[in-house]
Amino acid sequence: MAFEKIKRSENYSEWYNNLVKDADLAEHSAVKGCMVIKPYGYAIWEKIQQQLDKMFKQTGHSNAYFPLLIPKSFFEKEEKNAEGFAKECAVVTHHRLKVENGRIVVDEKAKLEEELIIRPTSEAIIWNTYKGWIQSYRDLPILINQWANVVRWEMRTRLFLRTAEFLWQEGHTAHATSEEAIVETKQMLDVYADFAENFMGIPVVKGVKTENERFAGAVETYCIEGLMQDGKALQMGTSHFLGQNFAKAFDVRFQTKEGKLEHVWATSWGVSTRLMGALVMAHSDDDGLVLPPNLAPVHVVIVPIYRSDEEREKVSDAARDIKKKLEALNLSVKFDDRDTFKPGFKFAEWELKGVPLRIGIGPRDVENGTVELARRDTKEKSVQKQEGIDMYVKNLLEDIQKAIFDRARVFRDNNIHEVNSWDEFVSVLEDKGGFISAHWDGSGETEEKIKEMTKATIRCIPLENKREEGKCVLTGKPSAQRVLFAKAY
Amino acid sequence: MAFEKIKRSENYSEWYNNLVKDADLAEHSAVKGCMVIKPYGYAIWEKIQQQLDKMFKQTGHSNAYFPLLIPKSFFEKEEKNAEGFAKECAVVTHHRLKVENGRIVVDEKAKLEEELIIRPTSEAIIWNTYKGWIQSYRDLPILINQWANVVRWEMRTRLFLRTAEFLWQEGHTAHATSEEAIVETKQMLDVYADFAENFMGIPVVKGVKTENERFAGAVETYCIEGLMQDGKALQMGTSHFLGQNFAKAFDVRFQTKEGKLEHVWATSWGVSTRLMGALVMAHSDDDGLVLPPNLAPVHVVIVPIYRSDEEREKVSDAARDIKKKLEALNLSVKFDDRDTFKPGFKFAEWELKGVPLRIGIGPRDVENGTVELARRDTKEKSVQKQEGIDMYVKNLLEDIQKAIFDRARVFRDNNIHEVNSWDEFVSVLEDKGGFISAHWDGSGETEEKIKEMTKATIRCIPLENKREEGKCVLTGKPSAQRVLFAKAY
Repeated sequence: MAFEKIKRSENYSEWYNNLVKDADLAEHSAVKGCMVIKPYGYAIWEKIQQQLDKMFKQTGHSNAYFPLLIPKSFFEKEEKNAEGFAKECAVVTHHRLKVENGRIVVDEKAKLEEELIIRPTSEAIIWNTYKGWIQSYRDLPILINQWANVVRWEMRTRLFLRTAEFLWQEGHTAHATSEEAIVETKQMLDVYADFAENFMGIPVVKGVKTENERFAGAVETYCIEGLMQDGKALQMGTSHFLGQNFAKAFDVRFQTKEGKLEHVWATSWGVSTRLMGALVMAHSDDDGLVLPPNLAPVHVVIVPIYRSDEEREKVSDAARDIKKKLEALNLSVKFDDRDTFKPGFKFAEWELKGVPLRIGIGPRDVENGTVELARRDTKEKSVQKQEGIDMYVKNLLEDIQKAIFDRARVFRDNNIHEVNSWDEFVSVLEDKGGFISAHWDGSGETEEKIKEMTKATIRCIPLENKREEGKCVLTGKPSAQRVLFAKAY
Repeated sequence: MAFEKIKRSENYSEWYNNLVKDADLAEHSAVKGCMVIKPYGYAIWEKIQQQLDKMFKQTGHSNAYFPLLIPKSFFEKEEKNAEGFAKECAVVTHHRLKVENGRIVVDEKAKLEEELIIRPTSEAIIWNTYKGWIQSYRDLPILINQWANVVRWEMRTRLFLRTAEFLWQEGHTAHATSEEAIVETKQMLDVYADFAENFMGIPVVKGVKTENERFAGAVETYCIEGLMQDGKALQMGTSHFLGQNFAKAFDVRFQTKEGKLEHVWATSWGVSTRLMGALVMAHSDDDGLVLPPNLAPVHVVIVPIYRSDEEREKVSDAARDIKKKLEALNLSVKFDDRDTFKPGFKFAEWELKGVPLRIGIGPRDVENGTVELARRDTKEKSVQKQEGIDMYVKNLLEDIQKAIFDRARVFRDNNIHEVNSWDEFVSVLEDKGGFISAHWDGSGETEEKIKEMTKATIRCIPLENKREEGKCVLTGKPSAQRVLFAKAY
């Protein structure tokens, strides 16, 4: 095992970096800012994709695919969107290389008439396409999702959390009315929250972003915010009500039932490989990953324990029998029968990889008709009968899924701090971290000042907020409700 | 229905273009050479992906993800590969835009020190990564696949068949011995052939490419070649034995069991959204797509036929009942209950979209306990009992899958022409098309000459070729076996 024992409590950031590498999730590539997602990490991403894809289809969406490259002139049509992303765009300027003195060089004769931008997000190219698809109210709604890679040039990168290229899904929908678009925006926020809580095991706060933190080009940005074990927040997904901004920028109008011409209403929503970072940071410990069963590529690992070849054979027969039973219940089981490693080494390796349950089986277990069962999340071990082990394991996995969520929820709930003065704000932020629930005067200026002074940003205005009169924690000006501040990834 | 009635026999190429657009598979985007894959087309691509992905996993492969962008210096390391792709590379030169006088322009201060190439294929970036993963024979084999987009700049594009950006999968494996790598190369060719024949319903010839047609950087390129209805061949997939070329270019060596240091052996293999083009061209007719059931997003469409509201209700109840039964057998069923269109219009629309079976149900059917069943492939109609319709349909779909393949195989077999003189070669190529089985002297020069004179290329040297002495059809020089020529997409 290469997992270097830097503890969470000592250096959370290094602990995270090491864990991502040592558990074989991802690594930095030789291309600045771009990562390689390794097979084990990608297997988790596939589980995330499959589940979300199912949920998108259940809510009526279809997948499609739009070009990677966006002509600069399209990109600049929605002004705010363009300004918001301009600083981090990869620009294609040539379409050919040539061989010159045995070296490969850019062919200056193959300069593009118009530069192409690698999509940082696809509103521009998609709304330019929708223009050709929408004439009448009969063509609406359009409910499309795309699984794709995007590039946002980043100077300071971190595996999964901030990379120049990342994988994501982006939903882009078109509607006849503002009301319908808002319903869609909120529905997809609910889908994300459902996924975060019931599959990733991470409780989230649903809320609305302030104007400063809003998606460039949106009328309103909804988000889900999770809390990591170091007390920092992580934005896990966003759903944007885009109003008619893109329809106006690309002149997409439709004939209403009444025969009028109106601009179309839009939403967009996305989650990305950032979720992999959240998954690692929310649950893992000093021994490695802790994966919720609903997203674990392997549910159960079986490790045989033996000395002689004869023992090995007996134990392996029993192990294969158990494997077969578990697989019949649609569980993913790994029988680790490598004879080049000792059981203790294997235990540590599968703990590092976060496999929810481990079954150890030795000669005495074979005699007694038992196995040793070890939970990854609590490290609890118990001896269980082989008979009925399949249903026992299935139920236990459900318990583990719930337990992982419950622990994260208790942690999160214990780390929402109401503060009522600036001194308290600063000291709680420094000493405890977490979410700070405080009054704010509603101005972008105050928000910016707080960010400069403390690095804390307004994560969201929670949707389920109680109305409560108060005074802004910084300026003392009147405020109608508390908002959630935090330092964030 | 927008499907313009240009017949296959009149203008195959226009027929194809119209069909792809009118059946809502794909369209050209505003970005030169790039396509938009529309939801219905993408749903077929998803079926292709799911099945191939399953087959890759069954043969021991895992998915992973490598960067989109490749530094120019990596790209030039494997000389032949670089030269082969240099002319069609999209080059990223800048990483920022800026706002200037209200317009978005490229920020010349953000010029990259080293240009980045958008991957035309990923051998370079992947072998640069494998270098860090492989030290010993214990690290081998590496069996990885990637689903990704790639860009190869094309001036003359055609939807699915030739586009600047396309979607594909690329397998990249690393092995300790040449033998093992060759076994892998051939195994993946067999996987592709299995998929083409049993899922796409397209019979293929398995073969080896000549040196002229070999993948740039490969030692040997294996391929599967299909025949389209216009008598042109289409390369449907390739599997390359790369020898030690990339291991040497990126200095990837491993310690053998015996303690020696040796270069690693490699394979790569891929299929792309080109397969969508093959699927359309192999089976469709003047009324639209003909989809093999194994890849059809919708297996059965149910169209209700009624005059009054009362009739509508009765017919719909029966239709929903049938839908439920079919879905219980894992079939995908669409109940087309739109009341804005007449049955005849719906029939034509679903024929255009290639749905394998249509069930029509009217008031008399409800009374008699029957339905009208129409096959898309043969246009045969029959009256069937509602009782037991589920199993009947399931079996019929299997028959259709087989019938589609059989028809394509008869067509293909009838269009392999043995020719023995140059005059015959030219006249058969012009009059009949198809594959021409002819002797060739084995020289690249002769191959090139034939291509210039006739546009026919050597599609492959079939793997199951009988040895047969003969004389080259062009030069009269001795030849040890026939090869397959054809005009190709």
